[in-house]
Amino acid sequence: MNIWRINVNSQQFSIEDVPTSWQHLGGRGLLAKILLDEVTPTCDPLGPHNKLVFSPGLLVGHRLSSLDRISIGGKSPLTGGVKEANAGGRTGYHLARLGIKALIIEDRPIEDNWQIIYLSKDSVRFDDAAELVGGGVYDSASQLRKKYGDQVAVALIGPGGEKKMRAAGIQNIDIDYYPSRIAARGGLGAVMGSKKIKAIVIDAEGCESPPIINLEAFKDARKRYTIALTNHPQTTSYADYGTAAMANMCNGFGGLPTRNFSQGTFEHVEKIAGEQLRELLIERGGVSKTTHACMAGCLIRCSNVFGHENGERVVVSPLEYETIGLMGSNLGIDDLDVIARMNREVNDLGLDSIEIGAALGVLCDAGLMTFGDGARALQLITEIRSLTPLGRVIGNGAGLTGQIFGVERVPVVKNQAISAYDPRAIKGMGVTYATTAQGADHTCGMTIRAKVKHTQASGQIKHSREAQLKMAGYDSLGACIFAGFGFADAMETISGMVNARYGTEYGKNLLQQLGRETIENEREFNHRAGFTKADDRLPEWMTREPLPPHDTVFDVPEEELDSIFDF
Amino acid sequence: MNIWRINVNSQQFSIEDVPTSWQHLGGRGLLAKILLDEVTPTCDPLGPHNKLVFSPGLLVGHRLSSLDRISIGGKSPLTGGVKEANAGGRTGYHLARLGIKALIIEDRPIEDNWQIIYLSKDSVRFDDAAELVGGGVYDSASQLRKKYGDQVAVALIGPGGEKKMRAAGIQNIDIDYYPSRIAARGGLGAVMGSKKIKAIVIDAEGCESPPIINLEAFKDARKRYTIALTNHPQTTSYADYGTAAMANMCNGFGGLPTRNFSQGTFEHVEKIAGEQLRELLIERGGVSKTTHACMAGCLIRCSNVFGHENGERVVVSPLEYETIGLMGSNLGIDDLDVIARMNREVNDLGLDSIEIGAALGVLCDAGLMTFGDGARALQLITEIRSLTPLGRVIGNGAGLTGQIFGVERVPVVKNQAISAYDPRAIKGMGVTYATTAQGADHTCGMTIRAKVKHTQASGQIKHSREAQLKMAGYDSLGACIFAGFGFADAMETISGMVNARYGTEYGKNLLQQLGRETIENEREFNHRAGFTKADDRLPEWMTREPLPPHDTVFDVPEEELDSIFDF
Repeated sequence: MNIWRINVNSQQFSIEDVPTSWQHLGGRGLLAKILLDEVTPTCDPLGPHNKLVFSPGLLVGHRLSSLDRISIGGKSPLTGGVKEANAGGRTGYHLARLGIKALIIEDRPIEDNWQIIYLSKDSVRFDDAAELVGGGVYDSASQLRKKYGDQVAVALIGPGGEKKMRAAGIQNIDIDYYPSRIAARGGLGAVMGSKKIKAIVIDAEGCESPPIINLEAFKDARKRYTIALTNHPQTTSYADYGTAAMANMCNGFGGLPTRNFSQGTFEHVEKIAGEQLRELLIERGGVSKTTHACMAGCLIRCSNVFGHENGERVVVSPLEYETIGLMGSNLGIDDLDVIARMNREVNDLGLDSIEIGAALGVLCDAGLMTFGDGARALQLITEIRSLTPLGRVIGNGAGLTGQIFGVERVPVVKNQAISAYDPRAIKGMGVTYATTAQGADHTCGMTIRAKVKHTQASGQIKHSREAQLKMAGYDSLGACIFAGFGFADAMETISGMVNARYGTEYGKNLLQQLGRETIENEREFNHRAGFTKADDRLPEWMTREPLPPHDTVFDVPEEELDSIFDF
Repeated sequence: MNIWRINVNSQQFSIEDVPTSWQHLGGRGLLAKILLDEVTPTCDPLGPHNKLVFSPGLLVGHRLSSLDRISIGGKSPLTGGVKEANAGGRTGYHLARLGIKALIIEDRPIEDNWQIIYLSKDSVRFDDAAELVGGGVYDSASQLRKKYGDQVAVALIGPGGEKKMRAAGIQNIDIDYYPSRIAARGGLGAVMGSKKIKAIVIDAEGCESPPIINLEAFKDARKRYTIALTNHPQTTSYADYGTAAMANMCNGFGGLPTRNFSQGTFEHVEKIAGEQLRELLIERGGVSKTTHACMAGCLIRCSNVFGHENGERVVVSPLEYETIGLMGSNLGIDDLDVIARMNREVNDLGLDSIEIGAALGVLCDAGLMTFGDGARALQLITEIRSLTPLGRVIGNGAGLTGQIFGVERVPVVKNQAISAYDPRAIKGMGVTYATTAQGADHTCGMTIRAKVKHTQASGQIKHSREAQLKMAGYDSLGACIFAGFGFADAMETISGMVNARYGTEYGKNLLQQLGRETIENEREFNHRAGFTKADDRLPEWMTREPLPPHDTVFDVPEEELDSIFDF
């Protein structure tokens, strides 16, 4: 495996050996290390000194179930801090087959031409992207498919990224060529846009899987992992309901974001919950699917395909709980078809549906939309496409939207929108939102299944810390959070597979080791970028505005937040 | 002198003794101390925990020339840090006569009613402001004059402050009842708006000047100060040309902001410079005046009255260099009548003309306006009044405007707009912009008259530090920067007047002592609010984009910036 480095200004390209201190890292952990080593933390995230880095996790490239994710990173234009966003789809697997441990994209072109970067065996080519510019993600993906064929992987941006909107992500095509596996959070699409790269096409023709030092041991560990994953009860549940199962669960905890985080339960939750989604997709038939894999080899298949009622056209794939929460209950919208259309539109614009849902919720408080008005919500998303001033505001996320319209109830940490777990009712999530270097992000440490009373303040630090370490480890392996169902009952298979793959001798603490190094490097980057404990806070209003129905505020003591990573 | 404390929620009012540690302070220095002692630095600046504080400087209340300024402070919603903005007009003098060393306004009302705070001898009253809400500053001031008479002082906000726009200031009426002495910078008008206070009316009827311990010594020092001020050559120059004289001077240094800080000289500078302004006002006659005092007793009278060409109607008073720079050359506009109308409009909206001028410059780079198009500039200001999304963006200042429209060349430090001295050509100003806790602000430390080559990096730290200490001292006295013409040749009159007034025994270092304590408290507040050295930087593009005609970048070393206040 090597480091591939591309300067988009000079169009120079090099394949480099992996520095010693990077060799044991992958995915999110390697991104943090590269950013710390190579990017000035105070740089303008949309200027020439930021870098955009892709890194497959340590176990990517072998079609292990739920273990081919791609981590994408850079300094975030949304938070101003370190950023990793990961996604399924093909990108991780294809990069690993090209032997790429990290792809580092540097500088930005002086000229105004948009480019496609075409990666193939030992080679990089710049293709002109003029015909794609301004186009939506779906159309662009379709054109790229025509040009480069069915077998490549593609990472691309939409109009949001082109226009350097801070809610823009980077989309990756999945096994069915749906371009909707989005490394969504933190505005990395804007970083790619600032470098005038519309798409990266990865052609692994003629390439092998990454080498495995001890194949027998690898196969043995893989087998045990696969069995454990298959047998875990959640695996079936996620195949049936996908992440949408979380809607009823969060509503039960009183932590379902409703009407711009002013309530924790939604009276119409059953109309947007996983059970209803499943029934609807079964009834609808045709292209609709209740279960679907985003990566080849996935046993869980938590994704879905939401088809049009005519059965012929795909509206969106997948429709996830986070989108249902932020674009559904958070806006008082109880119609899955409306939510799916909204999701389609923001995907096509290349934007993060969490950030846009949160921004629309803020606009409801500002009086620009009425809760429950799906037509208005769709119209507001159209404003983003039309690049009106209002559309640009929304496309820059909930934090800026709140500032522009003078709204107080803005659900952000480090300027990134809180996702679909209200931290006043599920306080461990609040600890994660506050203390992760990434800005509010549930994927940095889920505590929803922790054995704790979620409304109490005590004990949450421990659960969040454990979850954060684990997730930083998973994100360094290239593991989906749901790979955890397999690891839960066969934790030793992590070091088993890594040791067999690399010839290392890690013990059972590997995940925690990777997690800790990752989190420390991320925090160090943020420290150098100017972050302090003042940034590790939920918004003030969440500490004084009680959330119905439990009427709790966020009250985990600040001293506890500040000591969470005193290892 | 006492502390007056008003809670706008409970409408409780108290007159309190001055705590010992506050007694030697006034104006800006006292604000910093009060904020540090009483306001949680991490609070939401528009939430209930912020406070709005008015404090006349130590020498205010005696009609000393250029020494009756009011300092207004709070946590800034624009910068997120400590904020003091000061202004001439009547407010300082009237508060001092009421015996108010600091007026502290706390909390915010739960109900949605707008109030006027009416202060008179030993008493506070809340009057209903419903009739004024939504109205421009000029109309509101006129209604307040009808209701409260000619003799009161008034501090008020316009629609910008009501709508919590981050470029909103607080306006103070001058001796002629023009409501345009604006404590402009940092969004304190939004803080006042968040507390639902439309105006503060100060009636000093029946009150005396503050007591003077040693009247003879005071008269003696005053006399020496007055003579020195009268005899200083700049006093005459400022009476003739006002601050507009700076246009040619800055253009000569290659540091006149031109076309969104892309050039340092303006080819039509002579059409907007002080000489032209003076000629125009003389020729126009009628209400126009080339010289005018903002405070009673001022000998310099650097202000002016810009009248309509019909001679009967005042367009704006005053028209200052900063406005000419930011709304003139910075927008490529070379017509003083257009600039004066723009100034009138932003004054009426209660906004900072520097911040709005800078925001419009950014919009030119975004393609929403063409440089030189005054009609479009006026139309964009109208959008603020109409509260369109674009208007709201502009009203929140240059930094947010740049983020929303994805513009790189945004002239801000700590999110506050750089004023009319390009820091690449006048590097001492760059040091001040970067290192003052206030955000970019020329009034925190002018180096333009320092004996140094302004384009060189070396030596600038010393000049900026000296200027910053001096200005923090002046701002604690209630002194206009131009009082410095008097102090320059009679520095001992500062301690002379303060000692006579308070019975103290300060030596010649008084100004530096006050300045240092002020700056240290301000920096401590910002430190606790989460600021670090990463915030003490000019925007990155100014370090790599050369400014014509000298083609210099800002290159004062970061280590020097970081050690400027290592006393």
